[in-house]
Amino acid sequence: MAKQKSNVVTDVLKGTSQVFFMENSVTGVLFFVAMAYASYVSGVWATTIGAAVGVIVATLTARLLDCDEASVASGLFGFNGVLVGAALPTFIAASPQLWVYVVVGSAVSTVVTAAFSATLTARWGIPGSTGPFVLTGWLMVAGAYSFGGLHVTGDAPRLATDYVQGISSIPQPIELVQIFFRNIGQVYLLGAEISGAIILLGIFIASIRAGIAVVAGSVIAMVVSIGMGADPAVVSQGLYGFSPVLTALAVGMIFLEASPKVIAYAVLATIATVFVQGALDVMVAPAGIPSFTAPYVLTMYLFIAPKKLMAPHPHKPVAGHIVGHEHRKSASPASKAA
Amino acid sequence: MAKQKSNVVTDVLKGTSQVFFMENSVTGVLFFVAMAYASYVSGVWATTIGAAVGVIVATLTARLLDCDEASVASGLFGFNGVLVGAALPTFIAASPQLWVYVVVGSAVSTVVTAAFSATLTARWGIPGSTGPFVLTGWLMVAGAYSFGGLHVTGDAPRLATDYVQGISSIPQPIELVQIFFRNIGQVYLLGAEISGAIILLGIFIASIRAGIAVVAGSVIAMVVSIGMGADPAVVSQGLYGFSPVLTALAVGMIFLEASPKVIAYAVLATIATVFVQGALDVMVAPAGIPSFTAPYVLTMYLFIAPKKLMAPHPHKPVAGHIVGHEHRKSASPASKAA
Amino acid sequence: MAKQKSNVVTDVLKGTSQVFFMENSVTGVLFFVAMAYASYVSGVWATTIGAAVGVIVATLTARLLDCDEASVASGLFGFNGVLVGAALPTFIAASPQLWVYVVVGSAVSTVVTAAFSATLTARWGIPGSTGPFVLTGWLMVAGAYSFGGLHVTGDAPRLATDYVQGISSIPQPIELVQIFFRNIGQVYLLGAEISGAIILLGIFIASIRAGIAVVAGSVIAMVVSIGMGADPAVVSQGLYGFSPVLTALAVGMIFLEASPKVIAYAVLATIATVFVQGALDVMVAPAGIPSFTAPYVLTMYLFIAPKKLMAPHPHKPVAGHIVGHEHRKSASPASKAA
Repeated sequence: MAKQKSNVVTDVLKGTSQVFFMENSVTGVLFFVAMAYASYVSGVWATTIGAAVGVIVATLTARLLDCDEASVASGLFGFNGVLVGAALPTFIAASPQLWVYVVVGSAVSTVVTAAFSATLTARWGIPGSTGPFVLTGWLMVAGAYSFGGLHVTGDAPRLATDYVQGISSIPQPIELVQIFFRNIGQVYLLGAEISGAIILLGIFIASIRAGIAVVAGSVIAMVVSIGMGADPAVVSQGLYGFSPVLTALAVGMIFLEASPKVIAYAVLATIATVFVQGALDVMVAPAGIPSFTAPYVLTMYLFIAPKKLMAPHPHKPVAGHIVGHEHRKSASPASKAA
Repeated sequence: MAKQKSNVVTDVLKGTSQVFFMENSVTGVLFFVAMAYASYVSGVWATTIGAAVGVIVATLTARLLDCDEASVASGLFGFNGVLVGAALPTFIAASPQLWVYVVVGSAVSTVVTAAFSATLTARWGIPGSTGPFVLTGWLMVAGAYSFGGLHVTGDAPRLATDYVQGISSIPQPIELVQIFFRNIGQVYLLGAEISGAIILLGIFIASIRAGIAVVAGSVIAMVVSIGMGADPAVVSQGLYGFSPVLTALAVGMIFLEASPKVIAYAVLATIATVFVQGALDVMVAPAGIPSFTAPYVLTMYLFIAPKKLMAPHPHKPVAGHIVGHEHRKSASPASKAA
Repeated sequence: MAKQKSNVVTDVLKGTSQVFFMENSVTGVLFFVAMAYASYVSGVWATTIGAAVGVIVATLTARLLDCDEASVASGLFGFNGVLVGAALPTFIAASPQLWVYVVVGSAVSTVVTAAFSATLTARWGIPGSTGPFVLTGWLMVAGAYSFGGLHVTGDAPRLATDYVQGISSIPQPIELVQIFFRNIGQVYLLGAEISGAIILLGIFIASIRAGIAVVAGSVIAMVVSIGMGADPAVVSQGLYGFSPVLTALAVGMIFLEASPKVIAYAVLATIATVFVQGALDVMVAPAGIPSFTAPYVLTMYLFIAPKKLMAPHPHKPVAGHIVGHEHRKSASPASKAA
């Protein structure tokens, strides 16, 4: 019994650390410290409590559904739940219905994770990563507009550090340091730079190379977003940096093995993520939802999907089409590429 | 000759019954009675005529394309056509161009059904279900705004029962009974509670267990939508119930074999469908289109996709990437999961 | 050295011709002549220069990523880049950031092409075609709204021929001829009818049958869009015709072998593309982006995906579901279809 309880605790802490691809309970503890610090500063504890509820419910749901044992123990069914649990109270005011929403949303995130695993991952070799969080989170926040028991509080995280004004288009050095850390904290929807520093510490404890990739991602995001003239108020909150940070880590180190060519590829992916951030902010605005980590998810999927020796379909007939009886033989060369 | 004609008739009636996963000509007849009753009450016959045209055109198109014989005979190429044919005249005013639209849309629904079968179903093991109707219907209704010959009449079905006012947030018992049946009728875009009752009768004739699942789905949708504070006017029309009804039936009985665990899973899926209904209503509103059965389709796909022993990709390198020469050997453990 | 340089030139010219599925350097030269003519008339050279930069960057990126050699040499990694390079300066005003955008966007288009090849093409047998251009172009144009260094100039190509007024609902014969050629030129975002004529000449040089398919597609698009009452100003610019032209060519000749049944199938696909054009214009408008060739891409994917003998999933349990221990044996018949 004690052992089982201990297992759930480590599952949950590892799940918390897996948001940054780590599998380390100490890192998970530090991530909760970072969330608690931001709650302390803002006075809003629902986000930290939601994160805890989310990762616990998601992990237990995975156990009830007999999901792959090793994956559950590694926290791979928990990290989408912790993000759903942190995100919903960030964008929706506390109410009894909110907590129903957090519990159902976290449980559903596990089903969505299993769905992505059986399709994207099993068939196309693309890691699901935080895609299940993005999909679940979008549906839950959009749905909140339809229900009287739920009140959407804004389309940006409401945090102590949100109020930013009068910054020039090229921020002062001290602001650059703040942005650097906020870019990291915002992966957990935290705008407090101290929280970002605690998270970075947690990453370095688990892996020095991962820490370096995160640092690089944050710096690239700052340079590109400022250079392209992005809204300084948004850049300042770290909202242009959290997806590129994840892309740098995922493409540059986690899902590909580092080499000079991979590093160049990851830099291109990280720059592209900044552009996709700008794009998705615009594209999801009509639905009243935040883009979450979708810029990272979409860019990472596109950069991880390519496989060696996979050629585009040549501009010749495809094989075995429903209305193509006749060309059974003539289509056979094309069928190799298809 | 007589036999062939008879085949088309049974194909068409079975196709009509397949909207609720049944394969029963008598059920198909009752569904047409339900549509005709609603047309009689509202004075709008284009919906019933459109449904008949839709299922006939879709079925004949499947025969012309040499689609799988047994599937055509089971009505599996007809049920998306009957919904396209019923939906277009519900949302677009009658005109010569509307009937061109109904014929082309129904024929296209068969191609889309074949496309979903060759991809989602054949490769990912996910039933297409009414996904082809949703995609075709969305494109046709959105397109109608661009063409002067087509006039979009509203973003909700225009029916005799649409005018609802002054209901309190917890409806009276008699209203609850009306909502219960409208939740079922709205699968066929029918707001008349009598039509819902006739449809439920048709389902019970084909399968008592299916009837029970439909009843459970309608009740769960009522409890959740009222409990979350959804707009009473929308709840009252049955618009929060038709997708959950389909989810309860699909997940709880049709695509999984009933067991206590499956029933719990189906209850979660049905609750989630109510939330997704609220979400998709908000998300498609900017495009001026109704959500149709998309809340059911999306939720069902996500809940049916997971497979036993499918693990998420671990946070390790993927195999065979275009820019990853070097890690051929080291990536081999990860390639099992990918 | 001379030989290598020559290879890049032919790669690039063939890539330019592959927008219309041709693999012919002379055709590529003529397409550049058509773009240059439109630039000469409008005084805006950034589009032609962007196209050249785009196809060169995309092709070189494919070489750096070790993409399939034969595909690169056929221009299959260049045609999405040429379109990205032509489209971005059409919709975004010239600035230093625009050129960063063009270079990054073209490089990314190659990664997206490789991603589509490894998923849609390799697993589902669907050619990626200009899908990577549509995705990349949408993200880049939407993103431009977020960056102060980029200014979106309009949601339609700004060309010499854009100003059209006072045309009656059934255009005069001379206008029909202009529309006929603009339908072809707009594939390259060119509204000048002379450019369309030069492009058609380039196609006939490469393949007479392809030229006939293009002619048929343009005529069908005119008849359907005028018959359905589409906005005359939009029809007149050729904006209802360029996607149907590609569909007629792709479905009627390139990806299926011509036969009477295939021709009927291609006519249905071409008509459907006109409707999808109307739909996507409406659906993407809230995001402030043009539909690009998405109407062709979506319709072509749906019409090429169906395969012989692929049946829809019957309305029976799926096999091997995560919560379905018990039905291992009973599900085995269904598993054949799944």
